[in-house]
Amino acid sequence: MKPLINAIEAQKRIHAKLPRAAVIGCPLDKCAGRILRQTVHADRPMPPFDRSMMDGYALRAAEAQTGATFTVTGTAPAGSSQIQLAKETSVCAEVMTGAILPEGADCVIPYEDTERINTQTIRITDPEPIQPGDFVHLEGSDVAEGATLLNPGTLLGSREIAAAASCGYTTLQVSKIPSIAIACSGDELVEVDQAPALHQIRRSNDYSVETALARAGLHADQRSHLPDERPLAEARLTDLIQNNDVVILSGGISKGNRDFIPELLDQLGLECQFHGVAQRPGKPMGFWSNDKTAVFALPGNPLSTLTATHHYIIPSIREAMGLQDPPAPAKVTLTASEKVPAKLTVFLPVTHEDNHQAAPCPAQNSGDLVRILQSDGYVEIPAGAAAEAGLQYSFYPWH
Amino acid sequence: MKPLINAIEAQKRIHAKLPRAAVIGCPLDKCAGRILRQTVHADRPMPPFDRSMMDGYALRAAEAQTGATFTVTGTAPAGSSQIQLAKETSVCAEVMTGAILPEGADCVIPYEDTERINTQTIRITDPEPIQPGDFVHLEGSDVAEGATLLNPGTLLGSREIAAAASCGYTTLQVSKIPSIAIACSGDELVEVDQAPALHQIRRSNDYSVETALARAGLHADQRSHLPDERPLAEARLTDLIQNNDVVILSGGISKGNRDFIPELLDQLGLECQFHGVAQRPGKPMGFWSNDKTAVFALPGNPLSTLTATHHYIIPSIREAMGLQDPPAPAKVTLTASEKVPAKLTVFLPVTHEDNHQAAPCPAQNSGDLVRILQSDGYVEIPAGAAAEAGLQYSFYPWH
Repeated sequence: MKPLINAIEAQKRIHAKLPRAAVIGCPLDKCAGRILRQTVHADRPMPPFDRSMMDGYALRAAEAQTGATFTVTGTAPAGSSQIQLAKETSVCAEVMTGAILPEGADCVIPYEDTERINTQTIRITDPEPIQPGDFVHLEGSDVAEGATLLNPGTLLGSREIAAAASCGYTTLQVSKIPSIAIACSGDELVEVDQAPALHQIRRSNDYSVETALARAGLHADQRSHLPDERPLAEARLTDLIQNNDVVILSGGISKGNRDFIPELLDQLGLECQFHGVAQRPGKPMGFWSNDKTAVFALPGNPLSTLTATHHYIIPSIREAMGLQDPPAPAKVTLTASEKVPAKLTVFLPVTHEDNHQAAPCPAQNSGDLVRILQSDGYVEIPAGAAAEAGLQYSFYPWH
Repeated sequence: MKPLINAIEAQKRIHAKLPRAAVIGCPLDKCAGRILRQTVHADRPMPPFDRSMMDGYALRAAEAQTGATFTVTGTAPAGSSQIQLAKETSVCAEVMTGAILPEGADCVIPYEDTERINTQTIRITDPEPIQPGDFVHLEGSDVAEGATLLNPGTLLGSREIAAAASCGYTTLQVSKIPSIAIACSGDELVEVDQAPALHQIRRSNDYSVETALARAGLHADQRSHLPDERPLAEARLTDLIQNNDVVILSGGISKGNRDFIPELLDQLGLECQFHGVAQRPGKPMGFWSNDKTAVFALPGNPLSTLTATHHYIIPSIREAMGLQDPPAPAKVTLTASEKVPAKLTVFLPVTHEDNHQAAPCPAQNSGDLVRILQSDGYVEIPAGAAAEAGLQYSFYPWH
């Protein structure tokens, strides 16, 4: 390991070197969760016409007063072309909510402010003065034609896709999802379908990383294993680096005898941006890059891999995909103090309680799966700060 | 419409009639976001052996005291079979973090509490008394063999999938995702790729529903259009009901001339569970069901459709899929009061601010797309309650 850097510096260096995502066209109905890379404009005013806001009668406000009677000379259902109000005085048209205001009318009186005298005639019962524009949603009053509805960097959810659909966008320019490979190292790892010997464990970190990515709209193109035999590992790693935008390695980066991955990455021509972060868990974490590929090297224990994936990998990939203004983490108040090392940023598993509180749920060790399962996420205790009951910290939920 | 029911009663009736999801086997790497329908057990203790928690030397605690010297007679790397500590007194084995404690040893002294005298010999410098079990993570201390790790009803995220992988589950029993069809009605609707006439609008509600479902791990099998011509609508609706678990209709359920959908659903043999909810937006919302299919009928304006999808449809489908203990909505404090009708449950769009606050961002009308885009979600103002600055309400983010 090199000299430790702090967690914020690690985020900066990752952001500086993570390859930026290309822009591709995507059919609108496949855009859920994608990151927009263009501007979306209103192609016409909203509403596109003077629109009735109520079921009732459209007429001329100048003729309207309490007790006045009107002859019903037409009907304007929603979704039909505009009709004309007859030229005579004291006429009205029955209109439905959403209908185009008939030409010649300038206001709508809701049914409940009228009474029907006979099949042809209504009387106004509303005691209030009636003004032009009453119950009319004026053309362009929400949005002018050409106005910007969505900006580049927007995460596309239900509202954004609906807005794009109503403005006629059948395809949107979005960020290409980077190709991501995950590889776990260590000959003590066996496949999920195998029965491990006493000293062996099944591969699970690649599954946790793949799942966390998937829950964030990202996709791991492959999960594989890096053997401890160096020539084999070198060949596999070379292939992963050549064929992916992001490679996530779990294990093999501490100072054990067989932890040759940092050396191998250097040798393959990648530049080490850092190796060693003043944090717990995940102190040996490293990050390498070349012009086209970024390699995250995570400690192989489950909690370190999980935390680094949530705290560094997913946010930085989304940032490199152009995401603007991601929501700030929620602040929670710790219900109990917890002893933490002073010089490290600590990611402390917690359960999320009512009233924006969080109870520490520290893992006994980095492999303590049960405690991790019991927690709902982690809080970030900055280096130099205490983890103190009653104080607020940023909360990050597990995906 | 029938007599209005309240929002809570609407949720209850939906839950009572929504068809329960079947159980299917799913390969582990496709389980992200699925709902588990079985129990997952630990297939061996965790950790599976007495495990060294530090890089250092394994030895017999009874022989250890400050200043004592030991001969290094073996090495135990992580991920290797168990070695034996030599029988002689004052011997130790070098061990790596994660290694199996050598047979015959009962504690580990970290490197930093020792000094190396020569290649074969170390001395203990730790001034503290050394106890059996020091720096040893005992077999089964996290989880006993056979212990339950995951229960039915769990949403499968990164941690759960990793736990299942490490216990050898290549496939999990999960809820089948219901087949869902969405149909918008109204002849004023045109396709996204068409140029609407003045009185027409492009279909967008089916996109917003589809996207909200997708962001919640659900999938709309088809989006279609119900024409206003009744025989055509009847044929299309019959087909949708026969071939889907859930049908979501948007539009055509108010009391307009062409709003024949409620009648049609009755006629097709579905039972109306309610039609009309004391809420804003979305008062005309209805729900019909038969033995195998549930039909949500939503008002056709964008905000009503969006709100009903978030508030009723997604939570109820997930509940029918067996999801247990979904997280409670966050509580936020309103920054400003807002006038609301007393007898209705009001879903008020808000922007989410720092410090768990929310600012009202009321739509001018149910079609006010821009205000909806500006909001981050909505708060629920219960019927009879005021929307008052300084008071807390449940917050639901838009997906």
